[in-house]
Amino acid sequence: MFNKLLIIGCGLIGSSVLRAVSNRKLSKKIFVYEKSKKNISKIKKLKISCSILTSLKKNISNIDFVIICTPMSEYAKIIPKLNLYLSTKSIITDVGSTKINVLNLINKKLRKKLNWISSHPIAGSEVSGPEYGNKNLFLNKWCILIKSGNTKLKQLVILKRFWKKLGSQVIVMNPTNHDKIFSVTSHLPHLIAYNLIKTAKDSEKIQKNNLIKYSAGGLRDFSRIAASNEIMWRDIFFSNKKNIVNAINLFIKNLNLFKKNIERKDNKQLVKILINSKKVRKQIIQLKQDIDRPDFGR
Amino acid sequence: MFNKLLIIGCGLIGSSVLRAVSNRKLSKKIFVYEKSKKNISKIKKLKISCSILTSLKKNISNIDFVIICTPMSEYAKIIPKLNLYLSTKSIITDVGSTKINVLNLINKKLRKKLNWISSHPIAGSEVSGPEYGNKNLFLNKWCILIKSGNTKLKQLVILKRFWKKLGSQVIVMNPTNHDKIFSVTSHLPHLIAYNLIKTAKDSEKIQKNNLIKYSAGGLRDFSRIAASNEIMWRDIFFSNKKNIVNAINLFIKNLNLFKKNIERKDNKQLVKILINSKKVRKQIIQLKQDIDRPDFGR
Repeated sequence: MFNKLLIIGCGLIGSSVLRAVSNRKLSKKIFVYEKSKKNISKIKKLKISCSILTSLKKNISNIDFVIICTPMSEYAKIIPKLNLYLSTKSIITDVGSTKINVLNLINKKLRKKLNWISSHPIAGSEVSGPEYGNKNLFLNKWCILIKSGNTKLKQLVILKRFWKKLGSQVIVMNPTNHDKIFSVTSHLPHLIAYNLIKTAKDSEKIQKNNLIKYSAGGLRDFSRIAASNEIMWRDIFFSNKKNIVNAINLFIKNLNLFKKNIERKDNKQLVKILINSKKVRKQIIQLKQDIDRPDFGR
Repeated sequence: MFNKLLIIGCGLIGSSVLRAVSNRKLSKKIFVYEKSKKNISKIKKLKISCSILTSLKKNISNIDFVIICTPMSEYAKIIPKLNLYLSTKSIITDVGSTKINVLNLINKKLRKKLNWISSHPIAGSEVSGPEYGNKNLFLNKWCILIKSGNTKLKQLVILKRFWKKLGSQVIVMNPTNHDKIFSVTSHLPHLIAYNLIKTAKDSEKIQKNNLIKYSAGGLRDFSRIAASNEIMWRDIFFSNKKNIVNAINLFIKNLNLFKKNIERKDNKQLVKILINSKKVRKQIIQLKQDIDRPDFGR
């Protein structure tokens, strides 16, 4: 599919791209640029045929596909190098979790003739690092591609084909809708998980009870996603501020109503909310976003 | 261990007790009282040797161990029957998730000479019904026993032995601490899950986006426990009102602080919270409340 493909940033997602591209033979040569020496030595252990670059200079001039898998806060440092050395024939993409900020950055900083179409594969885990990558991480997962005024159709088609070859279900969206949708389905759940864990820890102090040891009753389910990478998530929270604040406000409004229903012992209202949740759960399973196997604890 | 054991209410938990007791041969005879005809026919299909009772009358006079596994709102209807027919030699327990309310009910309504020591096995699932029961549901799980002024030591020892034979780690607590601890580790996470799902559904309407279909990015993790039984959870929310309201208030306070950190782009404060969460996750794994296997979606 490509002659020379470059992965910039090779943690969980980058190394999953590396494995998937290598396994599916999607590029004659694969290049990896990674700053962390620890990660480089982990990547070498994978025994995947690729060239590890220690700088982004003339060595990238004839790359035809660049995929940026660093935290989003690194993009501003990478763009000047792409501007200097990359060919206008290349396609650039990234895998960042918010999109309006990326588009603004591209519009401001990227050389006009370079082609960047943003991607967001809805895949990942609470663990970080190349050792956890998986060649099937993107299999049967959504991948959102962002169309903007500058997007060239021909290159969008190539990018679509790339993600489809990794097994993803590709969908094209505008950045505004993307950032609104994922503020609710991803960013809000993660920040709730972080805050629930904080509340449990605060309660230990207030109650003087060792309560974390009884996490199996519900808390443990949230603690998993509250272990996700802090730099990645800080970047997400800061870059989708407006939508996330709206989502928090709506959630707090619902929590306060729920609290009133408990205080008033409003049986009808409370049970209605609980039954409706169950229906959404069924919908999530029908939409193949989760499986229908009961969980009795691990 | 017992001659005649009676399970009142045979859904997920009751049928797990039934399977566990039968499998481990803990009683010469097992009796089951269950109101729902649908559940009775499911229990019969399990082919476990037990007698199904259609009423609680003289037939229960020489039962030596009674375990009540109905939603807590049923207890008030069951107690008058125990008062009339049960022997003062019997031990009664229940598996309800809140304890001060149960103790108040016992003190008010139960005949003084009857012996009820409350239990709370920290085990369950989002599914309901006897078909989902499991003989090892209680294996390696906490079981909290509630000691109060009336608790007879000899009977507490027997109850402890019972749960240990089912594989549980038994711990004795007072009802006040119990209700405080589980308001944070169990009740708060469940009500947050319900409200997150409601917020997602509300957002679909506000945004006019089909966002539930992108649940894999975080929302799905919460939807599982938001599918739990609505009658059981309504009873819990109403009966532990004060502690739950305190937990909600503390959580909202944390959420508002987090929101401010996002709005101010307070890197230091935000990253601190995210890193601390990861530490609690490690603690939860060390305490064997979850396993350390990364989750990449199901």
